[in-house]
Amino acid sequence: MSGFQDKNILITGGLGFIGSNLALKLVDLGAQVTLLDAMIPGYGGNLFNISPARNKLTVNFADVRDATVMDYLVRDRDFIFHLAAQVSRVRSLSDPLPDIDINIKGTAVLLEACKKRNPRAVIVRTGTRGQYGPAVSLPVREDAPRAPKGIYEISQQSAEEIARVYSDIHGLRCVNLRLTNIYGPRAQMLSPDHGVVNWFVRKAIDHQPIQVFGDGLIKRDFLYVDDCVAALLAAASREVCYGQMFNVGHNAPANFLELAKLLCRLEKGATWEFAPFTPERAAQEPVNFYSDISKIQASAGWRPKVSLEDGLKRTLAFYSLHKSRYWQD
Amino acid sequence: MSGFQDKNILITGGLGFIGSNLALKLVDLGAQVTLLDAMIPGYGGNLFNISPARNKLTVNFADVRDATVMDYLVRDRDFIFHLAAQVSRVRSLSDPLPDIDINIKGTAVLLEACKKRNPRAVIVRTGTRGQYGPAVSLPVREDAPRAPKGIYEISQQSAEEIARVYSDIHGLRCVNLRLTNIYGPRAQMLSPDHGVVNWFVRKAIDHQPIQVFGDGLIKRDFLYVDDCVAALLAAASREVCYGQMFNVGHNAPANFLELAKLLCRLEKGATWEFAPFTPERAAQEPVNFYSDISKIQASAGWRPKVSLEDGLKRTLAFYSLHKSRYWQD
Repeated sequence: MSGFQDKNILITGGLGFIGSNLALKLVDLGAQVTLLDAMIPGYGGNLFNISPARNKLTVNFADVRDATVMDYLVRDRDFIFHLAAQVSRVRSLSDPLPDIDINIKGTAVLLEACKKRNPRAVIVRTGTRGQYGPAVSLPVREDAPRAPKGIYEISQQSAEEIARVYSDIHGLRCVNLRLTNIYGPRAQMLSPDHGVVNWFVRKAIDHQPIQVFGDGLIKRDFLYVDDCVAALLAAASREVCYGQMFNVGHNAPANFLELAKLLCRLEKGATWEFAPFTPERAAQEPVNFYSDISKIQASAGWRPKVSLEDGLKRTLAFYSLHKSRYWQD
Repeated sequence: MSGFQDKNILITGGLGFIGSNLALKLVDLGAQVTLLDAMIPGYGGNLFNISPARNKLTVNFADVRDATVMDYLVRDRDFIFHLAAQVSRVRSLSDPLPDIDINIKGTAVLLEACKKRNPRAVIVRTGTRGQYGPAVSLPVREDAPRAPKGIYEISQQSAEEIARVYSDIHGLRCVNLRLTNIYGPRAQMLSPDHGVVNWFVRKAIDHQPIQVFGDGLIKRDFLYVDDCVAALLAAASREVCYGQMFNVGHNAPANFLELAKLLCRLEKGATWEFAPFTPERAAQEPVNFYSDISKIQASAGWRPKVSLEDGLKRTLAFYSLHKSRYWQD
């Protein structure tokens, strides 16, 4: 991946899961990286995430909703990766306001800042496969109907549509990615709300039974975070992607039972058990979901490279070594 | 229309165009009506709107985004009509934040208040036909794809989806209406942003040329405000409507040229002329749009009763008499 050497880059949510992995990669590629993070408790920001490159990048603590700060911070950036968000779908159902305020308004504040101060920046933002709601046909293409089921998913759909307006009407160069289930190092690991794979990994490491809901045969396209980072960079570097939205998922879906069994094979002492669906999970989406990724493959030349087994090995190794940094707030 | 006698009713945006017409009707029907309005300059709130019933209802100046106030004000209401919104699509393109804050967050604040303090209230909220974007096939049904083109339209789509979550997950009784072009007395009359028919009416009364863009043959289903009020009440009174969304439009669409000519026939001294589309209007939607209203007709027994000619006559009569109250802020 070339094209980022000496580039001036801002990552919102830069101390979070995907943001920090992206930051480390961009530092490796020789970019000048500034991270923005509001460090909202429970949202995943963690200074330890960037410890391998702490003095090779700039950390700026601020909130993406602060228009004055954003007007200043977007200036002169070549690329802006917008990852700051409330991302717990469970939390969004008990209090919708952070999703509206951070995910929707925060995106609008950033885009307004770019419109005024840096209309040539390439902006990559991430949404969720949850924007589709339950899959109508598989694999799910970008033109599938969208029926987001919760406030979090609605907020990301709304943010994407706002970004489309800024592309279409104001000429900004925005790329929207709809991410599938991402897993790997540097995630929020305090609850299952932030990704089932990482939660299974935690249970495996802790030698607590991994709970497989229902018959475990529901399929998902779990994607390792390094592949996700590669997708962000690929989409940012191709002009043909600007103004577009793309699925980012894996072309080798797996079911939850396979996932649990694989973890038990890779991690000595791990166990799994069947468990009934919680009413909440049953209501949410007891159906298969995996993304059609042919659009981003054609436009940006990206495809996943890490198998589920390799991704899990790396994830287990990371958290086994660093669990003291992730097992509590 | 029965069923509202002695009912306890809250109308947000109650001093605005549709809210005030609804309030007057509900007072006639014997309801106990409280109006909430933040009186944001330029948004259409006007105390004169309710002068025929000033001492038969309660006016409460407050903002729908104020959660503490809303928690208090929603208690004990039988019906809540949620009409408070930023409704200028033009304004939304220069500053997206009021739409996000008032239309999306304001709706969430209201629904949270109901969830906590009054989960049995019937809540009717209004969105816009703009949620569909340009019509793909005509007349436009509720299950047509939605591709909102601007921030205002996105905000209303998002508010509707949030209301759907509160119906589906929290069991609230919300009805969502997607309104077509509404016209009639008590509107904001300061600019064309708030409805083309009323703007044409103002031009007719002022004997300034009515500007018909392009060839004037684009069709719309203009709806008189009394019919819109009747739709709000009909949808509120039918349990089968709760949790649903409905188009509210007219089954006799007309084009802009017919509209202009009709006004010139009804108003002595009125004139019209062809004018080129402004770039903004041309980009927005130079295509026909009219709603399929069979769903609300079947579910709520509502259909429009006022012809375009009758509606225009009443509108001309109202503003001719009261123009001093509407021609300036």
